[in-house]
Amino acid sequence: MAKTLKEVTLEESMNSKKNEFKDYIVVDKKDAYRFIVDCMIKVGTDEEHSKLLADVLLKGDNRGHYSHGFNRLEMYMKDIKSGVCKGTGNPILLNNFGATGWVDGNNLLGPVVGDYSIKLAIEKAKSFGVGWVCVKGSNHYGIAGYYTLRCLEEGLIGISMTNSSPLMFPTRGGKPALGSNPISVAASGNDNDNFVLDMATTTVAIGKVEYAKRKGIEVPNSWGADKTGNVTTDPSKILDGGGLLPLGGTEESGGYKGSGLGAMVELFCGILSGGHWGPNVRRWMSTTAEADLGQCFIAINPQCFTPDFNTRVQDFIDTIRTLPKAKEDGPAIQIAGDQERFHEKFVDKLGGIPYHPNQIENMKQLSEKYNVKSMTLLGKVSDILN
Amino acid sequence: MAKTLKEVTLEESMNSKKNEFKDYIVVDKKDAYRFIVDCMIKVGTDEEHSKLLADVLLKGDNRGHYSHGFNRLEMYMKDIKSGVCKGTGNPILLNNFGATGWVDGNNLLGPVVGDYSIKLAIEKAKSFGVGWVCVKGSNHYGIAGYYTLRCLEEGLIGISMTNSSPLMFPTRGGKPALGSNPISVAASGNDNDNFVLDMATTTVAIGKVEYAKRKGIEVPNSWGADKTGNVTTDPSKILDGGGLLPLGGTEESGGYKGSGLGAMVELFCGILSGGHWGPNVRRWMSTTAEADLGQCFIAINPQCFTPDFNTRVQDFIDTIRTLPKAKEDGPAIQIAGDQERFHEKFVDKLGGIPYHPNQIENMKQLSEKYNVKSMTLLGKVSDILN
Repeated sequence: MAKTLKEVTLEESMNSKKNEFKDYIVVDKKDAYRFIVDCMIKVGTDEEHSKLLADVLLKGDNRGHYSHGFNRLEMYMKDIKSGVCKGTGNPILLNNFGATGWVDGNNLLGPVVGDYSIKLAIEKAKSFGVGWVCVKGSNHYGIAGYYTLRCLEEGLIGISMTNSSPLMFPTRGGKPALGSNPISVAASGNDNDNFVLDMATTTVAIGKVEYAKRKGIEVPNSWGADKTGNVTTDPSKILDGGGLLPLGGTEESGGYKGSGLGAMVELFCGILSGGHWGPNVRRWMSTTAEADLGQCFIAINPQCFTPDFNTRVQDFIDTIRTLPKAKEDGPAIQIAGDQERFHEKFVDKLGGIPYHPNQIENMKQLSEKYNVKSMTLLGKVSDILN
Repeated sequence: MAKTLKEVTLEESMNSKKNEFKDYIVVDKKDAYRFIVDCMIKVGTDEEHSKLLADVLLKGDNRGHYSHGFNRLEMYMKDIKSGVCKGTGNPILLNNFGATGWVDGNNLLGPVVGDYSIKLAIEKAKSFGVGWVCVKGSNHYGIAGYYTLRCLEEGLIGISMTNSSPLMFPTRGGKPALGSNPISVAASGNDNDNFVLDMATTTVAIGKVEYAKRKGIEVPNSWGADKTGNVTTDPSKILDGGGLLPLGGTEESGGYKGSGLGAMVELFCGILSGGHWGPNVRRWMSTTAEADLGQCFIAINPQCFTPDFNTRVQDFIDTIRTLPKAKEDGPAIQIAGDQERFHEKFVDKLGGIPYHPNQIENMKQLSEKYNVKSMTLLGKVSDILN
């Protein structure tokens, strides 16, 4: 029997990942979870808070967003250890009106604040059809998609946004004034298929620029600017006091729209919540001041609208995936969330999450430094798959 | 006394507009309103509906969005005349649950459906903190910003989105499958200053490509694709069966994000409402089938959150406007809505709306064809300002 497009696309993706990740070391998910929890408890975090963080970070890695996973563990540990972020306590509900909730994250870990807030948004959506929760006093909350996926589990549509440290040059600006300000929107199709947009409002994440620098290659002229805000294709200049361009790149190619989208996220996060905003957010990785990030969590009950929502979503994403391709022999057309879905399937196939050897080395150092039982390594990807 | 940045920026903008619009003919706003209402009534539209359309179209022109103003009057007249859109009747509230409303636009004019829906969203926001209204069975509703500006008048934050005829190639796709799918978000600062994002999720609107073709110039490689979905800088190829690229342009420069944003708008409009969606929306200007567009109107009451919202918005937009510039002698940094604000000030200065001579000619033809009293012309911009 001929293979379906879905099967072919998955196979293509698995083969490409097999090569891309061949030197990575696979770690058991439960053991990784235990390790993160142990590490966070060691620096004085509540067990419950540690578990929430572990869940968010591993969801990031599981979906292939390595920049928002395990590799940030040490940053969270430092935040707790230095006291700039609190490892114990509860978020505070400042206002509770109708379908809205205004929350003070009480400077707790982002995933703790996020868990509280998305639960509140979900509860509101069940009572009022929609729940809109706005948060100040939060910290880095991992992948934005974690929270929108939580909505899918409840049969709801989810939206999540956060502001972040200034890194993006608004169009015509000569100083980074907005963060990568990501937004996630998720909606379920049928049979666990779904649409999960999870994107920064900059053209790319800073990690892609770092990668280009390591490879010694130039980047497209829509990615970043030097420290005066002028476009450059030299990754070193972007990283050395420069920053990222908004989605769309230069003004001519629509960067002012990405600039506007970043500002929109800031309005719903930092401005509306009463938290820090724009250039007033602390610098990335700084531990000298509280982050006081602003975040926004929205849940919508599709049952208030068309009765056949999930089937309509499925029709829509299938239609996009099966459009004729621009390049006949090019890669498959994807819907938002497909990349992450493929990575999850790859993880399932491996029986654990693959990590770069450097990351594994970093885990070992953490294990020794904090006297936490090290993780069992399941082996190299190339060995497991051969 | 030295001029403020605000004054200098406004002066720069007025001078540049004085030149750009020198050959345009100025029309009195009240007379233009009367003319549009007369024309719509002539083809069988209710007076109230005609007035709503006139208000939306003139708001578009007043804000410099000429592609969504008077120049579309004839399209609306044809829609009513042919019976493919209804000039009389009321929208139907299909479901009314908590903070949500599901509306059937009953195939009425977009501005009629939009007026009903944004009022409902506003009412909900006053009762529940947020109002989320989703609509099917609608038609072209003019500028998305019209509806979010209505929210500002009520002290609320506004969001508005609509799907539209397929014109955009999703990343890797070889067939236009999504519309320009615009989104508007508006929030008030102080003293009538505000943030009004009003943007298509394509890199540019089709009008900009048409303009390049008339000028005989190439367009940037982030704007459009030929009929097979492959990027081209030749405006003729984009217009001849091709289409627009999503915000971000090619995949390499982040076009998949714009593609995801366009799909997000489709989810909240066509999919969630039960209306037409994606490639199933009728072709642009076609009058052979009902449009059945999907739209989404959201109002949020900022008083449910931080108490000093408007002042915070003002601080934010002032901060962005006064950032150091990337090019010292370059144009001023703007916030979303500034371009439109400048055009409104220009209109105020002229005492009416300036229209291109071709547009004036078209109005004359309409006047003769439908036996509607013609408009009084106030004169050429260059004469009025000299």
